[in-house]
Amino acid sequence: MTPTPEQLSELVDAGDLAAISHALDGIGIAQSLSIVERLPAGYRAVVFRLLDKDAAMAVFEALDPELQAELIGELRDDEVRGLFEELDPEERVEVLDEVPAAVASRLMRGLSGPEQQLTGVVLGYPPRSLGRRMSPELVLLHPTDTVRESLRRIRATPIPTDSLAELPLCSPERILLGMVDLGALLRSDLDAPVAELQRRGVALHVHDDAEHAAVQVVDSGAAVTAVVDEEDRVVGVLTLEAAREILAEEADTDAARSGATEPLARPYLATSVVRLARSRVVWLLVLAISAILTVQVLELFEGQLEQVVTLALFIPLLTGTAGNTGAQAATTVTRALALGDVRTRDVRRIFLRESAVGVLMGSLLGTLGFVLAGAVYGFDLGLVIGLTLLSVCTIAAAVGGCMPLVARTLHADPAVFSTPFISTFCDASGLVVYFLIASAVLGI
Amino acid sequence: MTPTPEQLSELVDAGDLAAISHALDGIGIAQSLSIVERLPAGYRAVVFRLLDKDAAMAVFEALDPELQAELIGELRDDEVRGLFEELDPEERVEVLDEVPAAVASRLMRGLSGPEQQLTGVVLGYPPRSLGRRMSPELVLLHPTDTVRESLRRIRATPIPTDSLAELPLCSPERILLGMVDLGALLRSDLDAPVAELQRRGVALHVHDDAEHAAVQVVDSGAAVTAVVDEEDRVVGVLTLEAAREILAEEADTDAARSGATEPLARPYLATSVVRLARSRVVWLLVLAISAILTVQVLELFEGQLEQVVTLALFIPLLTGTAGNTGAQAATTVTRALALGDVRTRDVRRIFLRESAVGVLMGSLLGTLGFVLAGAVYGFDLGLVIGLTLLSVCTIAAAVGGCMPLVARTLHADPAVFSTPFISTFCDASGLVVYFLIASAVLGI
Repeated sequence: MTPTPEQLSELVDAGDLAAISHALDGIGIAQSLSIVERLPAGYRAVVFRLLDKDAAMAVFEALDPELQAELIGELRDDEVRGLFEELDPEERVEVLDEVPAAVASRLMRGLSGPEQQLTGVVLGYPPRSLGRRMSPELVLLHPTDTVRESLRRIRATPIPTDSLAELPLCSPERILLGMVDLGALLRSDLDAPVAELQRRGVALHVHDDAEHAAVQVVDSGAAVTAVVDEEDRVVGVLTLEAAREILAEEADTDAARSGATEPLARPYLATSVVRLARSRVVWLLVLAISAILTVQVLELFEGQLEQVVTLALFIPLLTGTAGNTGAQAATTVTRALALGDVRTRDVRRIFLRESAVGVLMGSLLGTLGFVLAGAVYGFDLGLVIGLTLLSVCTIAAAVGGCMPLVARTLHADPAVFSTPFISTFCDASGLVVYFLIASAVLGI
Repeated sequence: MTPTPEQLSELVDAGDLAAISHALDGIGIAQSLSIVERLPAGYRAVVFRLLDKDAAMAVFEALDPELQAELIGELRDDEVRGLFEELDPEERVEVLDEVPAAVASRLMRGLSGPEQQLTGVVLGYPPRSLGRRMSPELVLLHPTDTVRESLRRIRATPIPTDSLAELPLCSPERILLGMVDLGALLRSDLDAPVAELQRRGVALHVHDDAEHAAVQVVDSGAAVTAVVDEEDRVVGVLTLEAAREILAEEADTDAARSGATEPLARPYLATSVVRLARSRVVWLLVLAISAILTVQVLELFEGQLEQVVTLALFIPLLTGTAGNTGAQAATTVTRALALGDVRTRDVRRIFLRESAVGVLMGSLLGTLGFVLAGAVYGFDLGLVIGLTLLSVCTIAAAVGGCMPLVARTLHADPAVFSTPFISTFCDASGLVVYFLIASAVLGI
């Protein structure tokens, strides 16, 4: 039975460390992690200290950089040094970005020479660049070696197993010749020249955008991809797993933003109410202020509203439907852009397809609206609602589909840019269309 | 210069195969993949045949199962057999789910004995279960072996390199004793007993929900996790990379659904307009029909509207803001649920936190609304708008935050369930609050 953070907090308050160790005894990494994440700041370090060495290390590695930084602040220097030394260089850099400069330099000084040097390499590349996310720990195979000699090189270099799956075969100048699959290496004749196992390998550039590079790696499906610098020398590798992690972070950010919030850097329950509000309020303000446009549009038609108040009843229905249609198109195209399925130059094709989709859905909804509204409020109003639904669905789909491309062209994040613009645009334009049609049909 | 799908389509129409091979010459896997994905159905097979063997294989493996199935339909049996044999068993099963039964059994018959058997194992487990996504290809280490003997076992079993990173150490009855890191194995003394390298390993159950298991694996950070059956015998492994892939698919589906569309099984431009409409229309109908509630609510207050038509001007602003606040809360909590940061039993804490967040944001927006509306439409209406914004933000945040938990309790997908409910609920409740406050303040 896994203890809850609440139970543990009480034990900490009671100072009953023995009971805590007992409660933590034999629970898995995943459970320990979720407990440490969900504990209040003050209690985290106390419980963390009582995890067994391996579990503590695994948990620390799995924590978000922000929580790692916090924990580092709460632990003693000697405890921290061990944890920090155990991290991979690229993981250390993420922590260094979170802690105060003074702590950062102390952490760096605490590292052993070679680890310090490897961390420095990653730290040297700009944020969001591939250099920041690659693993600088390498085993380079030489084309003149035999399989036996290559295995000896691996033996001699203590690098993480996951970046061993495929090994870069390089010229003496570290120029990439190809990749060698570890499985193949393990299964070949020890005296065979390793060059025989060489497979074509594509190299990524250390200054590439990390997300863009990650998409290429996941598409290529290569377990390990070499990363080269300006002189085309191999300086690191990106594993498929690391690439997926980068994309997962992106997907997470996009999901949050399409819900009009900033992603939280730490677990929900470990985030203060003020921080939660801060992650949303800017978005909410932007959306609310842009919504003032709808008030102004309606003012233009106040006359018509006074004559036929019934028109007001359908406002939320119509603006809502328009907004949903626009959001659907924007979501679909944003995803297609992220996957590289469409390019900005496809704008014409997308506009035409989305218009067609809009007409299809609009006709269905329009007919429905005509029948229902017509039955209750008479033929004329039914006609107004039906025609409006048809028009707004078409407009919203077409504009919603092109919006992410506009964002991309403006070098804005499609997921971010589309959301506020779409909803406001659909509301405002929907209302204009609604009242124009109403004036025409009802002759007001 | 990578050729565009359009250019290639023209070359296919012209029957100029030589020009196509020339155009494809030396382009990377990622580019080839994106070309094959974006080509119209008829042209795909023609171009695919002209890729060089390795590239073709890599591209085929990277395609979505639905496109793999389509391509299989367009290629000759002998071509297909090779491609299908090259896939991992768990990948084959995904294809088999997509093709007609007749094709499926032909594909299975085409496999070599052992591959047929491995595929059968995966096929035997229910969809969405971990068994369907694990790799059944195993090297089991024996506690009595030396490192040398263990390396010999690896030599003898041609399994994918990525599932070699950590190897299950098992009793003769295939009961998991622990995991052995391949890197450690490669670096230890050949005569040392492999048992010395044993590390604690947690096993997942073959009938676990695949997504749930994937979350555990990513949290634990283990490169390879053993999968056991009812008798606790190791029957497969799940790699960290495979776990991330499962979660990526989930995130993709959730992103689509929070945008009120079904995810597309194939690239955007390869999806017909009708399919696009079909992926959205159900959602749009649900949302539109539930929005009829707002019409009914407004009917209740038609009297007030007739007296003060100006009230109508703010309807889209208020419902929009309420909807956004609700969506923000729902998005945040849905994510926290997916990450396991919150449990359904945290409902009270979440309700309180979200209410507090709502009050915070509501006070800010309310003050703003009071000042702006007050300046233009006078004190009374300003007061109405201000109070309404405060109330709807609070209600929407509180309800929006709890909605995903309700969904989870009803065993519905939070991302799916929350979206339609939230928007309608916020619109309707927002309008009620609006007109109640208006009646009170304006005495109508």
